[in-house]
Amino acid sequence: MGAREREIRPEWLPRGVRVAGVHCGVKAATQARDLALFVSDGPAVAVGTFTTNRVVAAPVVRTRALVPTDAARAVVVNSGNANACTGEQGMKDAEAMARMTAARIGCAPEQVLVCSTGLIGVPLPMQAIERGIDEAARQLDDSVQSWRDAARAILTTDTTTKVAASGGEGPRVFGLAKGAGMIAPRMATMLAFLFTDARVRDPERLQKVLQAVVSETFNCITVDGHTSTNDTVLLLATGASEQEVDAEALSCGLLTVCTELARQIVADGEGATKLVTVCVEGADSSRDALLAARAIAESLLVKTAIYGCDPNWGRIVSAAGYSGASFQPELVSVRINGVVVYDRGRPVPFDRRALSEAMRQSKEITLQVHLGGGSQRCTFWTCDLTEAYVRFNAEYS
Amino acid sequence: MGAREREIRPEWLPRGVRVAGVHCGVKAATQARDLALFVSDGPAVAVGTFTTNRVVAAPVVRTRALVPTDAARAVVVNSGNANACTGEQGMKDAEAMARMTAARIGCAPEQVLVCSTGLIGVPLPMQAIERGIDEAARQLDDSVQSWRDAARAILTTDTTTKVAASGGEGPRVFGLAKGAGMIAPRMATMLAFLFTDARVRDPERLQKVLQAVVSETFNCITVDGHTSTNDTVLLLATGASEQEVDAEALSCGLLTVCTELARQIVADGEGATKLVTVCVEGADSSRDALLAARAIAESLLVKTAIYGCDPNWGRIVSAAGYSGASFQPELVSVRINGVVVYDRGRPVPFDRRALSEAMRQSKEITLQVHLGGGSQRCTFWTCDLTEAYVRFNAEYS
Repeated sequence: MGAREREIRPEWLPRGVRVAGVHCGVKAATQARDLALFVSDGPAVAVGTFTTNRVVAAPVVRTRALVPTDAARAVVVNSGNANACTGEQGMKDAEAMARMTAARIGCAPEQVLVCSTGLIGVPLPMQAIERGIDEAARQLDDSVQSWRDAARAILTTDTTTKVAASGGEGPRVFGLAKGAGMIAPRMATMLAFLFTDARVRDPERLQKVLQAVVSETFNCITVDGHTSTNDTVLLLATGASEQEVDAEALSCGLLTVCTELARQIVADGEGATKLVTVCVEGADSSRDALLAARAIAESLLVKTAIYGCDPNWGRIVSAAGYSGASFQPELVSVRINGVVVYDRGRPVPFDRRALSEAMRQSKEITLQVHLGGGSQRCTFWTCDLTEAYVRFNAEYS
Repeated sequence: MGAREREIRPEWLPRGVRVAGVHCGVKAATQARDLALFVSDGPAVAVGTFTTNRVVAAPVVRTRALVPTDAARAVVVNSGNANACTGEQGMKDAEAMARMTAARIGCAPEQVLVCSTGLIGVPLPMQAIERGIDEAARQLDDSVQSWRDAARAILTTDTTTKVAASGGEGPRVFGLAKGAGMIAPRMATMLAFLFTDARVRDPERLQKVLQAVVSETFNCITVDGHTSTNDTVLLLATGASEQEVDAEALSCGLLTVCTELARQIVADGEGATKLVTVCVEGADSSRDALLAARAIAESLLVKTAIYGCDPNWGRIVSAAGYSGASFQPELVSVRINGVVVYDRGRPVPFDRRALSEAMRQSKEITLQVHLGGGSQRCTFWTCDLTEAYVRFNAEYS
């Protein structure tokens, strides 16, 4: 959608973390940054959530085995190559990335978490990676510029960086992410790195808090329904603020940051022109709400209708119908950008021309679906499906 | 894909059925045929399978309640209007269509099966429908031309008719279908009408045979994953050939006809340029095979890669990975149009340029995925995803 880079404010930044983002040559064809390094001054609590794909990249296998932990020191990330489907070599390379990083910053390899994103099925160019880790380790600092460099260095097909901060009272949470939208060989997986300088004693509880937040945010977005082999969300709590908090105290700030990053990812979906929020309410169970919301958000016909600024309640209602959610069709109501278009099982007259024009004017579209049952709800975010998406994913061979 | 109309051969036609296809004005904007009538000379065994969507059109509710039966006399079908989401009026109109037809051909309304396909949420124009039933009843005969008219009269966004015959030995089975690819308001649901002149005594057993065949054919195709409110497959056995057979004796002919119609539907998917056959083999269970095949066939990234003639095994493997199917990633192999591109968990070198060029030259693409486990398999058919699909489904508001 928009390609304007997000501002990073100094007061957002977590204390106790130094970062760098460099170009080392994994993205061989460009001069774009392709390696980011995040280093905690001391041992940090680290928790994470990972792709549910059965086919999993080597760095995910390794990092997944290391969290939760209370002794993480660094996260090293390369973009341009996913180190996925590369057999035993992949595991060796992920280990080597950790070892190189550990040597530069002075810790054990197990204290380094590794992420990769980019092309599938191609071995990592380890000489470039080593150069990048060297360079990044030399550049580490806590400046806004370095955070901006790191935010750029994790991108693949994204058009702009994705950053968000919790703001307000409560422990400070800052996050950066890269977008979803495709996978090998042009690749993008969803990666997010979250930081807080609060001190958290219990990694296991923090892991649960992160999982709950991710289930309502990053697990409720879709660009094309394709779960990658590399999706990873990591949260590091450095404790540098000396502010000791319960893991639960972080949930509000995490929810703010993850919701914002999730929306930024969808808004920057490949070829997207509109950010679509699907709110399903009045469901008998949270599972019914999720099923209906996901089916609507993933429907090609709903997504193309949005692109065409068409207030097409029929596609929305029928997507809910095949979603597997249990509901009574004669009680369903639909609002598009606040306008009732379908009320308790019946289409209602509305000014189609005016609503379509309003959709055309708006970068954000809201689809509210009330299933007419219980009190459960689910919000899902998606984008429209455009010819640009098809071109982007087809025209490179 | 191709818009050439399929030939109908006289020897294909089932004895004991007279048909007509007329224009009555449901498709108000064109002179296209929009009402088909199929009449069995005597009471026919009729069985059917229907959409699994929770939101179901009135004619589906009515017809579903009437089969299996051994006393069907007619099927009346209108295109251009789905009679879906029209409240109680919808049921009244479906009943009226049956009553009008019954009066013209001399039977009880319960002997008439009704189908509608087209716009959702708009009441049926019953004056036009009545005119159409009158006209069709007058024109009924068993000529090739009338079958061709009927095959045209059930279409909505299809570019061409879909017909198939069983051929060879065994009871004669003939079928016609209309395509899937979208739903309201521009609409297309999948409808298929199958006829045999064999005599079958047991409607319940025939129902089971039809269900088994549909599960391997019409339930294994996808254009955009959207299950409509109106999908219906009806099979009528007129008995006019006096050849008495077990229901099971029909399964082979039915499978031939339904497979062929299913493939024709996918090949004529909106905007499609290629017919894609996804064969998943080596699965531990038939469910695993189905899950993997469906996920690959529905993947936007796989479908856009095919459009781009890109032999992208990464998208195929990762779609299997998130499908929910159980398998060991290190045992998976993939062939594209017969060429091994991924072997037991590893990419293998192949001539990418040559394979891409071969894909470009071919209207049909085969993706074979061996999961490296048991002996279960599933075949799924889909088409590529093109800019034309997006334009078609977006640019009408």
